[in-house]
Amino acid sequence: MYIVIMAGGSGTRFWPRSRATLPKQMLNLFGEQTMLQLTYNRIKGFVDNNQILVITNKELKERIIEQLPDIPVENIIAEPFGRNTAPCIALATAIIKKRAGESETMVVLPADHLIQETDKFKDCMLAAVDYAPEQGCLMTVGIKPTYPETGYGYIQKDEKISEQLDRPIYKVKTFAEKPDAEIALRFIECGDFLWNSGMFIWTVSAIEQAMEEFQPELADSFNKIVPKIDSPKMDDAVYDVYSKIKSVSIDYGVMEMATKVCVIEADFNWSDVGSWEAVYNLSQKDHENNVIEAFNKVLLDSRNNYIFSSKKIVATVGVRDLVVVDTDDALLICKKEESQKVKDLVEIIRRNGWEKYL
Amino acid sequence: MYIVIMAGGSGTRFWPRSRATLPKQMLNLFGEQTMLQLTYNRIKGFVDNNQILVITNKELKERIIEQLPDIPVENIIAEPFGRNTAPCIALATAIIKKRAGESETMVVLPADHLIQETDKFKDCMLAAVDYAPEQGCLMTVGIKPTYPETGYGYIQKDEKISEQLDRPIYKVKTFAEKPDAEIALRFIECGDFLWNSGMFIWTVSAIEQAMEEFQPELADSFNKIVPKIDSPKMDDAVYDVYSKIKSVSIDYGVMEMATKVCVIEADFNWSDVGSWEAVYNLSQKDHENNVIEAFNKVLLDSRNNYIFSSKKIVATVGVRDLVVVDTDDALLICKKEESQKVKDLVEIIRRNGWEKYL
Repeated sequence: MYIVIMAGGSGTRFWPRSRATLPKQMLNLFGEQTMLQLTYNRIKGFVDNNQILVITNKELKERIIEQLPDIPVENIIAEPFGRNTAPCIALATAIIKKRAGESETMVVLPADHLIQETDKFKDCMLAAVDYAPEQGCLMTVGIKPTYPETGYGYIQKDEKISEQLDRPIYKVKTFAEKPDAEIALRFIECGDFLWNSGMFIWTVSAIEQAMEEFQPELADSFNKIVPKIDSPKMDDAVYDVYSKIKSVSIDYGVMEMATKVCVIEADFNWSDVGSWEAVYNLSQKDHENNVIEAFNKVLLDSRNNYIFSSKKIVATVGVRDLVVVDTDDALLICKKEESQKVKDLVEIIRRNGWEKYL
Repeated sequence: MYIVIMAGGSGTRFWPRSRATLPKQMLNLFGEQTMLQLTYNRIKGFVDNNQILVITNKELKERIIEQLPDIPVENIIAEPFGRNTAPCIALATAIIKKRAGESETMVVLPADHLIQETDKFKDCMLAAVDYAPEQGCLMTVGIKPTYPETGYGYIQKDEKISEQLDRPIYKVKTFAEKPDAEIALRFIECGDFLWNSGMFIWTVSAIEQAMEEFQPELADSFNKIVPKIDSPKMDDAVYDVYSKIKSVSIDYGVMEMATKVCVIEADFNWSDVGSWEAVYNLSQKDHENNVIEAFNKVLLDSRNNYIFSSKKIVATVGVRDLVVVDTDDALLICKKEESQKVKDLVEIIRRNGWEKYL
């Protein structure tokens, strides 16, 4: 079995800590370890380290090699360009096909999600790999929603087709894009909908067949370069493929159309950590509900704040519900419940031509 | 005529910008110039630069020489220790007595107040020096209060004794310490009270006589060193005097007891700038009532804030009524109306033993 960590994403939601060359998966938003390191440690020991692939980009590759010293360097693969998740997965599939053959099981995981209940996560993965490969299906992991989140995609479950280690597995009726508030509420009330976690379990041959059916050019391009994987010609071959292919997500390009798709209902807490407010919500708070990382601090009558300023003394008086993020060249102060607007700030900074801050 | 600028104060109210070695008068809280430079520029040309004395301390002397290059170095005098305003004024009096004789007029000004109406200030000073020296009285400058400020001392006026250049001059009935809110309100309603600006106009002989009467030891000590002023023995003599004398303010030690005390009612806007909120109130605001000094900035839906972070980009979303002051090693975030509590923060920092931040 191979585990594929997708670590190529860029992002703007954690500005000013996240930068063009330092996206979310590279940040230590929760304690010492980066999101990527947390992801690796969550699956460490599932498989041998040489069966863990990390797909990233050229800018991040060196830093990822440093962050994950136990993973062989040849397993940390840089895409020449970002082309969304379908090409990323197709590349991983080609590599695994070459190295292990088409019956190999693949578990695909995003590098930048938070799962704090590692044991439940492991059991769920065991249940998934017990079922999906044998049945030849494309399995996704659905999270039982706890509130009507509008920032996630949803999966509508159909009939229950199995149960593994107490986890129910359903056929998938439909995938739903990020809903508006009203629809999200209906999803929750209806009870049929799960959050789409972006994790997948399948065999090389199952995903290959689905790609051949719904993304034939993509499948064809990557199939052609399988013989060149791990050869001196690999980089050029990969570059050629990426130069020609279109950007497309695995959900939109494959999963939403594929027939043999199932979802395992996960019982662990999961978050894609989409904003500073989410980081606050997922972090441990002090007795006045502050989350604060500072070299020194003095807080007077201050509550419900998220504050990051690692090198300084931070002193506050009478402040509530703020996100404050202080870096060497930028200072963000944001009402916590509006922290999703950080991406608007980043857009304005870009339009103003202040790329040095991005 | 000599003008004496008292620039020896230390302070904590503008932390983290103000530091032990960088008190308020050395800060450029309003534009490019420091409070001290603004004070100097306000009186520039009144008298020759060699008739302007700046009394400060050892720590600040070199920086003041840099900030006021037009003032002769021998006119920038460092007290060996801070002993409040009475010794400071006694030292200035001794120097002026030696250099110009006891009939010389002295104007004494704090270095850290803000007066934005320079022309009115000049006219008021002209009116004051027209009257006080000739009458041999100790003149203070009283500001017509515009609200019941509890952070200022007050002067109760008695009968009107003159009018110069349309400025009324009154006998002083009493000096009042900083009042509580209720009493401050009564002061305003009563109409007899003026804010005590801490500016004085008198002759060398008038202040000498008053000191002899109410602070005889102080007067005697300084009178003895007059012959040593501007001699090689001056520094040692001043050091000896300061080693022995007690700390006392000119208001408490002299003015409150003296009989021939008058007050000129000033018509210019004046502030002793006692907090970050005061700096905000006295600064020019943008169209959303923000005062912001930053290298770059992006403000979304943010109003009524004071923000200082000179070297960074500052980005805000949805914030109101905040004071944010960002320096190399400290970050203050304070509800604006609670900015007088900055001195409490400083006290806590001191108690914690974090002197490096002070």
